[in-house]
Amino acid sequence: MSQLKYDVAGIGNALVDVIANADDAFLKSEDIQKGGMTLINAEHADVLYGRMGEAIESSGGSCANTIAGIASLGGKGAFFGKVKDDQLGKVFIHDIKTLGAEFPASVAADGAPTGRCLVLVTPDAQRSMSTFLGAAQNLTPDDIDEEVIKASAITYMEGYLWDQPSAKDAFLKAAKVAREAGRIVSLTLSDSFCVDRFRPEFLKLVKEEVDLLFANEAEILSLYEVDKFEDALERVRSDCKFAALTRSELGAVIVANGDVHIVAAEKVEKVVDTTGAGDLFAAGFLYGLARGYKPDHCGRLGVMAAAEIIGHYGPRPMVSLKDLAAERGL
Amino acid sequence: MSQLKYDVAGIGNALVDVIANADDAFLKSEDIQKGGMTLINAEHADVLYGRMGEAIESSGGSCANTIAGIASLGGKGAFFGKVKDDQLGKVFIHDIKTLGAEFPASVAADGAPTGRCLVLVTPDAQRSMSTFLGAAQNLTPDDIDEEVIKASAITYMEGYLWDQPSAKDAFLKAAKVAREAGRIVSLTLSDSFCVDRFRPEFLKLVKEEVDLLFANEAEILSLYEVDKFEDALERVRSDCKFAALTRSELGAVIVANGDVHIVAAEKVEKVVDTTGAGDLFAAGFLYGLARGYKPDHCGRLGVMAAAEIIGHYGPRPMVSLKDLAAERGL
Repeated sequence: MSQLKYDVAGIGNALVDVIANADDAFLKSEDIQKGGMTLINAEHADVLYGRMGEAIESSGGSCANTIAGIASLGGKGAFFGKVKDDQLGKVFIHDIKTLGAEFPASVAADGAPTGRCLVLVTPDAQRSMSTFLGAAQNLTPDDIDEEVIKASAITYMEGYLWDQPSAKDAFLKAAKVAREAGRIVSLTLSDSFCVDRFRPEFLKLVKEEVDLLFANEAEILSLYEVDKFEDALERVRSDCKFAALTRSELGAVIVANGDVHIVAAEKVEKVVDTTGAGDLFAAGFLYGLARGYKPDHCGRLGVMAAAEIIGHYGPRPMVSLKDLAAERGL
Repeated sequence: MSQLKYDVAGIGNALVDVIANADDAFLKSEDIQKGGMTLINAEHADVLYGRMGEAIESSGGSCANTIAGIASLGGKGAFFGKVKDDQLGKVFIHDIKTLGAEFPASVAADGAPTGRCLVLVTPDAQRSMSTFLGAAQNLTPDDIDEEVIKASAITYMEGYLWDQPSAKDAFLKAAKVAREAGRIVSLTLSDSFCVDRFRPEFLKLVKEEVDLLFANEAEILSLYEVDKFEDALERVRSDCKFAALTRSELGAVIVANGDVHIVAAEKVEKVVDTTGAGDLFAAGFLYGLARGYKPDHCGRLGVMAAAEIIGHYGPRPMVSLKDLAAERGL
């Protein structure tokens, strides 16, 4: 598939992360679901931001992190998402373009400001997210450039899009275009609470539309409403051509045409902030698959990229993943 | 002095740092002085930002970093600097206020946007800065609240202010108020290139106005135009009541009423980004002095705070410095 212009086209919420440390008591007092992602409105975001500690800002957004990772690996990506023409919107566009990825969607001249995700990192390195979607919620099917989708080996979308009707329509349009062009359609379940909100629709998507599914353990258990990972794995094997299931320090389980491959996690000296771990795993895997690598090679690229991201604050690589891969002979 | 409302009032450029990795070849191609701080205009900032890699944003500004550090140590600080009422200005104010520091200056409703410092970190962890002052250059003597200065044990100012006439006037006003109230006046030389630009004025300041001087080795050598640290130290002993001279991995040399104390540097596992090292050293030292600690105790707080900051990207503490100090019995 290397003759295509893009390895991966991604569709997701364009967000700037605002990352601060917090303790469990703070999460409790603010009624924040630990490890999850909760949508909040502008007023709530202002109040929570006012109570949060000192923060750093980094471009984020699950799918956008993945596209950034693919670019860092030397791949070519395009990201569809909506920002406003404000300071944070400029930051978002700079960060995705400087890596060589394309940003084909239009920028909003007015309306809601660029969306942001308030990320609270607890001492156990877990992240809990409160998202004000802002401009991101105004992504529509018109923002999806069909030619870019057709020219991408894989079209990759985040489950979070399901929270907004127009973004969901953009997702479905892109999936249709990709499928008709014979490309791979891929989905990440994003978050177990997100799966809870949309289980029947996600089950239908996974069976009928998706060639490659990404999920972590909590998400896949939630999707199939089972208690054991092995039971979920059996369901995945029958529903998906390809799947990559991540299990934190247990590594990843790859399903490819019914076969199962286990990929060990990489050792990380100190886990600082797990924000972006799943996104970067997906980056490595998608890049490998777009380049026609074998499943376990794809998985190893995924665990490598995830290991880089959890060693520092922020969901974007701080070093060239291409160089890291070369060091490992990947 | 503990009955005063503030430990330290700081006056400096209010900036948001935009931090990216770069190699030496990039610095050369962009004609950036390695290790220094260069003032650039808005157009140059746009061009350079466009060429820089993916970045993270963090509140910065040398003196503001120091005030943030003092707050993180459990001290009470106030910071005078100018931002605009835009997204980055809101970030700056949030970050300084959330630590418990006060931000008494007015916020600009129009004019130049909040200033930013483009920080390029090379693989040797050295930082090179290109600063677009923006709103920061509009700090004037009217922004200085005399009551806050009088209520602060120490008034601390950055040499960088000398680049802007109105900011320099703000500095001189604050120094006069502090001196007349019997408070300590403190200055950091900021940068050896800055010293080069204003040597005669800085020499006069150091002799006549400043009770406590901060400088690193390059800056103090530049101030006195000598080649040997020992020669500079002799001059400092005769010119300053208190001085803290930092020497990177050699630690710090403290001058107090003619006596000299040597404080060893703390071991740092991996130096990632030296941005803010001097600012945080000053935070520890100033906090200690405001609380009446002995010179070497002040110095140890300084090297502790500096060690924390160079272990991660960004110039603001990621953990409570108060807790770190308690762990060390400081």
